[in-house]
Amino acid sequence: MQTAETATNPTVDLGPAAALSCRECGHRVPLGPVFACEECFGPLEIAYDFSAYDTEELRKRIEAGPANIWRYAPLLPVPADVAEKPNINPGWTKLVRADNLARELGVTGGLYVKDDSGNPTHSFKDRVVAQALEAARAFGFTTLSCSSTGNLAGAVGAAAARAGFRSCVFIPHDLEQGKVVMAAVYGGELIGIEGNYDDVNRFCSELIGDPAGEGWGFVNVNLRPYYAEGSKTLAYEICEQLGWRLPDQLVVPIASGSQLTKIDKGLQELIKLGLVEDRPYKIFGAQAEGCSPVSVAYKAGHDVVRPQKPNTIAKSLAIGNPADGPYVLDIARRTGGAVDDVTDEQVVDAIKLLARTEGIFAETAGGVTVGVTKKLIDAGLLDPSLTTVVLNTGDGLKTLDAVAGTGLTATIRPNLDSFREAGLA
Amino acid sequence: MQTAETATNPTVDLGPAAALSCRECGHRVPLGPVFACEECFGPLEIAYDFSAYDTEELRKRIEAGPANIWRYAPLLPVPADVAEKPNINPGWTKLVRADNLARELGVTGGLYVKDDSGNPTHSFKDRVVAQALEAARAFGFTTLSCSSTGNLAGAVGAAAARAGFRSCVFIPHDLEQGKVVMAAVYGGELIGIEGNYDDVNRFCSELIGDPAGEGWGFVNVNLRPYYAEGSKTLAYEICEQLGWRLPDQLVVPIASGSQLTKIDKGLQELIKLGLVEDRPYKIFGAQAEGCSPVSVAYKAGHDVVRPQKPNTIAKSLAIGNPADGPYVLDIARRTGGAVDDVTDEQVVDAIKLLARTEGIFAETAGGVTVGVTKKLIDAGLLDPSLTTVVLNTGDGLKTLDAVAGTGLTATIRPNLDSFREAGLA
Repeated sequence: MQTAETATNPTVDLGPAAALSCRECGHRVPLGPVFACEECFGPLEIAYDFSAYDTEELRKRIEAGPANIWRYAPLLPVPADVAEKPNINPGWTKLVRADNLARELGVTGGLYVKDDSGNPTHSFKDRVVAQALEAARAFGFTTLSCSSTGNLAGAVGAAAARAGFRSCVFIPHDLEQGKVVMAAVYGGELIGIEGNYDDVNRFCSELIGDPAGEGWGFVNVNLRPYYAEGSKTLAYEICEQLGWRLPDQLVVPIASGSQLTKIDKGLQELIKLGLVEDRPYKIFGAQAEGCSPVSVAYKAGHDVVRPQKPNTIAKSLAIGNPADGPYVLDIARRTGGAVDDVTDEQVVDAIKLLARTEGIFAETAGGVTVGVTKKLIDAGLLDPSLTTVVLNTGDGLKTLDAVAGTGLTATIRPNLDSFREAGLA
Repeated sequence: MQTAETATNPTVDLGPAAALSCRECGHRVPLGPVFACEECFGPLEIAYDFSAYDTEELRKRIEAGPANIWRYAPLLPVPADVAEKPNINPGWTKLVRADNLARELGVTGGLYVKDDSGNPTHSFKDRVVAQALEAARAFGFTTLSCSSTGNLAGAVGAAAARAGFRSCVFIPHDLEQGKVVMAAVYGGELIGIEGNYDDVNRFCSELIGDPAGEGWGFVNVNLRPYYAEGSKTLAYEICEQLGWRLPDQLVVPIASGSQLTKIDKGLQELIKLGLVEDRPYKIFGAQAEGCSPVSVAYKAGHDVVRPQKPNTIAKSLAIGNPADGPYVLDIARRTGGAVDDVTDEQVVDAIKLLARTEGIFAETAGGVTVGVTKKLIDAGLLDPSLTTVVLNTGDGLKTLDAVAGTGLTATIRPNLDSFREAGLA
């Protein structure tokens, strides 16, 4: 790859990021647009140098920072002046104390919803794309790209527009018109590929290896190690919003599994840095039954994940062969959590339950986490007497079809008699 | 009305709100669920007692407050402990420095977009509903209600759900399915009225005067004086986010005109309280040509507004007989601003311009303000060398139809040859 030179360029300033380190064999390489270990093909992730930080100084610096993810710049692979650069600036979304939902679910230890629908393009993807964008800038890329079937396309389009990058997003050519509009409105190139999502992905891998892809940052491929770190900010925000305290239990959706593993990484960092007290926490993973490879493996006691062909309304979680599945299994078991799944009907019920109790209209992925939380409580696997945080990673406006059955309570004529006849008085 | 007694109840605690005062004749009445002056039928608004505030103490108190509108509780008709009560907690949305858009429009003095799509139900309506909810609580109401064709229905449904109120929202029975779903998902009563929006409004007025409406707070009718104050928070946030400084120019959409008048009220309060330096500012009003009664009156030099029958894609601004129209004319003229309008085609172009330059996907109302800003600059009425703030009050996801023409740049087969043939390399 042409970009190998850039990788060793000492002028690359990504703050505390020191190197890339293989998750499997520990082999280290300089920071660059690479994602697989040259020794063992394991996934590369960011290794940091946090040695210079004083705990209380760091805490003050974070608290004085902006109301977005850049308050955590000292813990992310970004330059110190990142907040001054044009980016989409996601994060610092609401941690909603969900007392009504807690009452319905029988949770007495405090229940919270981390509501990432408040991000600029209304999904958690803004967090990871914002990171990838800074890496793309550091490596001198001029085009931001990805393959996507939804949330990611909008997040990349919006971030690229604001930061002055060209964007080129690849999607299956026959996506629903609404999703195409949402991705196209930011004015970047939006290319329909004649084929399914797997074909789109294969084509993107080809493009990265070709001279035609020079200068292109694929946020979830050659920039993946940087991109993935964005999910750590969910862990940071939850703990800071709880008053620099670890929650006892977290319920996290699983698509590739990357988000869950990075939330665990973020919590571990906060412990090591002394920003939170070191006490046990449990991480629970949530999937839809129609795409539940990790849940199935967890229940069978397996260490490996057997791929599935997805068939669920929770399309933003529908990755049949999740790359980080084995790591998720490991974290769930190590922390004393679990992995479970819910049917599409339970997803819809949970979306309505969350909306009815807390006024939060979640994407299907939020229905999955709320539904799994209920199921885990009923099964005695999640302790209702402990502080619990449930993630909603997207917005109901993007998956309206899931609740299309919802409608008018009554239809009346415009007069009081008709109102009384309908039993509404 | 049964609720007249409550109005004089000394236990009603709405913080610094001292009384209701008629905007026309100045007649004062105690705080209560009334909206029209008993002397002259003029609109009632909140009169405050801010006399006890020390400027620097107040500034510190605000800055230490929560990241939502309740940081301004000392300036709003809400109890001091409002942040502890269950509510939707909107506000503190991003003030985006829009350098790319500024370049395209030739603005050199600093251009900002106040992006209210970041609110919980993704429109500025959350601000006003959150206020009405606190008034409803203070007056002992148990049902939150409104007539609506869109954004307001969702905001009322969500806020009521979270605060434990019953909600009952009235809409025309033949609204688009998507809007019905968005309003219904929060689980309140959603009543379709056989008739148009005027019929719905007439019915609601009937219901308020009937025993069947006892205990009902109609956010934009009998709670209107409280509801309307929510728009002041836009002025507060813009000034605080600019570093406690007045912008030179603001471009504000006009529906009923209430938002624009309350933004002016908020700016005047900040000046009187000493929180910002007293210097001139200009307020510009923006309408769609298909519903431009205030713009037409402004250009004709009239003091009164002649009603129109709306016909525009900017449906959230389509009020043909805007109650606050005359006050808007007065403010635009007094501050040296103007009122102008743009065609539906210009609205769509402006939505795309904002998305392409800043990664913000605005509702049609945001297309109206950005479009009018461009038109005013071209006409020499808005000074590009001055600091300018443009409001986006809603979310593009709710008006996807407006940009339905947006689509794929190209369709290719999943290989590099096809990619090159399409001229993409």
